[in-house]
Amino acid sequence: MVIDNHIILVFALILFLTKFCGIITKRIHLPQVVGALVAGVLLGPAVFNLAEHNETISVVADLGVIVLLFSAGMETDFKQLRSSVKSSALIAVAGVVLSIAGGFAAALFITGEPSFECFFIGVIIASTSASIGIEALHEMGRLKTKSASGIIGAAVIDDILGIVLLAVVLGLGEGGLSVASIAATLGKIILFFLFAIGAGFAANKLFGLINSKFGETRRLSIFALAFCFLMAYLAEQFGLSDITGAYIAGLALSSTRFVDYLEDKTNVLSYMLLSPVFFASIGLQVVFTGFNGKTAVFCGLLLLSALLSKLLGCGLGAKICGYSNRESVQIGAGMITRGEVSIIIAGRGIGAGLMDASLFSPIIAVVIITVLIAPVLLKAAFSK
Amino acid sequence: MVIDNHIILVFALILFLTKFCGIITKRIHLPQVVGALVAGVLLGPAVFNLAEHNETISVVADLGVIVLLFSAGMETDFKQLRSSVKSSALIAVAGVVLSIAGGFAAALFITGEPSFECFFIGVIIASTSASIGIEALHEMGRLKTKSASGIIGAAVIDDILGIVLLAVVLGLGEGGLSVASIAATLGKIILFFLFAIGAGFAANKLFGLINSKFGETRRLSIFALAFCFLMAYLAEQFGLSDITGAYIAGLALSSTRFVDYLEDKTNVLSYMLLSPVFFASIGLQVVFTGFNGKTAVFCGLLLLSALLSKLLGCGLGAKICGYSNRESVQIGAGMITRGEVSIIIAGRGIGAGLMDASLFSPIIAVVIITVLIAPVLLKAAFSK
Repeated sequence: MVIDNHIILVFALILFLTKFCGIITKRIHLPQVVGALVAGVLLGPAVFNLAEHNETISVVADLGVIVLLFSAGMETDFKQLRSSVKSSALIAVAGVVLSIAGGFAAALFITGEPSFECFFIGVIIASTSASIGIEALHEMGRLKTKSASGIIGAAVIDDILGIVLLAVVLGLGEGGLSVASIAATLGKIILFFLFAIGAGFAANKLFGLINSKFGETRRLSIFALAFCFLMAYLAEQFGLSDITGAYIAGLALSSTRFVDYLEDKTNVLSYMLLSPVFFASIGLQVVFTGFNGKTAVFCGLLLLSALLSKLLGCGLGAKICGYSNRESVQIGAGMITRGEVSIIIAGRGIGAGLMDASLFSPIIAVVIITVLIAPVLLKAAFSK
Repeated sequence: MVIDNHIILVFALILFLTKFCGIITKRIHLPQVVGALVAGVLLGPAVFNLAEHNETISVVADLGVIVLLFSAGMETDFKQLRSSVKSSALIAVAGVVLSIAGGFAAALFITGEPSFECFFIGVIIASTSASIGIEALHEMGRLKTKSASGIIGAAVIDDILGIVLLAVVLGLGEGGLSVASIAATLGKIILFFLFAIGAGFAANKLFGLINSKFGETRRLSIFALAFCFLMAYLAEQFGLSDITGAYIAGLALSSTRFVDYLEDKTNVLSYMLLSPVFFASIGLQVVFTGFNGKTAVFCGLLLLSALLSKLLGCGLGAKICGYSNRESVQIGAGMITRGEVSIIIAGRGIGAGLMDASLFSPIIAVVIITVLIAPVLLKAAFSK
């Protein structure tokens, strides 16, 4: 039990500074989540170097984003989500296709000639990581709007597209792409969703029984959180991201009569410790090294591609599906955040020799900047 | 952000099984905390080997016990605690002296002749780790009783005695014990308590101001938790244990008008994640290896010494100070748990060649058994 007690100080600093910066950003009419992200940058190697992104921070941050998406699932209007499946699919596909094209173009500007590397960089920025956008919607109390359902539905489909794309590019890169491997990836996804539907219905009934017998007691919220963690774990076992599993767990409980009780307890756990660590952990990964003139230009172009591809692609997709202009902009803004998936794909690509290592810092910078910009854009798009 | 996602499954299992076993032990009229400890044993290498005690579990468990003691501090009746300082001191000293004598006797039976090793083993079992007892009192709603104040006060003094003893035995063992080093240790303790009194008063005022200005809002509970973590960290910097710092932080806020709000939020954070991990983590460390006939006998004798020394020592100390028979038994029962301090001292002793390594397993077994027995005894001592 002898542990490096410095980490207790790090938790104290994270709690204090994320809230403090959040209060300041709220004062200047920015979302609190922006303040929390900035707090991480301040604490990390980029500024004061008081905390490092170690494994424990990483795990607690992961629990944080899992709990955020579990909460978002519980708050989702399931009927609205179901009715928007088709439009969500179009929004997701449009955003992904334009992102690949945009990333390709940005890379082309640097490499000078079209190559597999250009395509690979397009794939890196293809996937949305909707957690920050969803938290901003949560903070604004807008999670039950039609646009929010569109964003969440598209984010889930985006996650599926992301893993299929990853399988494709890694297969292509290693020269071993086969119909069988793509079919296996798709098969696993379908299996997971079939399983998730069954598990969701079973959990809904089971928790209903616990509630009928024992009322709104601790066991209800503790078992629900265990269910959320289990679904998050299983989603990763099927190749999806853990937050998709957590979101589905929340969705399964969203129609119960005790959902307000569960949400209340989950939210306390989230804001008291886990989500501050999650937001700070993103900022902790920011470093301002590894840039030269060329990579800085690449970074700017890639950022532009990342922003425009989702704003235009997802926005137009939404518009085609009958959303209003205003809602289309909201959806576009909600989809621009990139996240750990982009960083993971980039890391794997460098490891497999598919991409030049000097492009890693610019890609991380693009991820961080989209994360900082999205909540601000979302707030602007939702305010009158 | 690529993490070993197996740990998400471990968290799911811990949450489910600690609550499930807790429900069962409650059914058979045992404290829930016993079930949670057993859940850890089941999950760990001793039985099903589904989880291991890694650094992340250790840190989250540490946050768990810190939050438990923070909560206990907020629930403490400060006036009652202050009025029982003298009796707490006598209770603590009597328990520590008898523990050293008992440990010495148990070791003597094995080694055959009195030695420094015998004395060292006495020191190992000298210190109480009151967290489990305090949680059992919390669960029974008995934290505001006179006996509970006696136990908590004695536990804090016990912590102080523990570090002085550790400094003494390490100094003696290395042949470098000097008046200066003992004075330095004592000086640090006094400095910390002077600092803690100042910080406690300042925090009490500061949080009062935040509450007056903003009401019972999230910032109040988040900043309070940050303050708790900071005090826990600082206590360790001064050589005390982190839980003593956390307890003092809770105590500083115990007299505020918003203490119920803080306790409510802290308790949700605790029971939803942190304290299940803390209890499970103790069980995860149980292994049934490293025993032979001789060490098994030693283990039995040391256990007997550990139990009787605190029951008799602390109980008689309490009786002398005017507690009733019943209260004296309650206090004795509340003081028998040993914890990480014993394990740490034993580990250091082996490292410094002060103790035979074969005695480590029996010592861990004694710690675990006292942890399992204490809540049961406490419940019996408090029931009519």
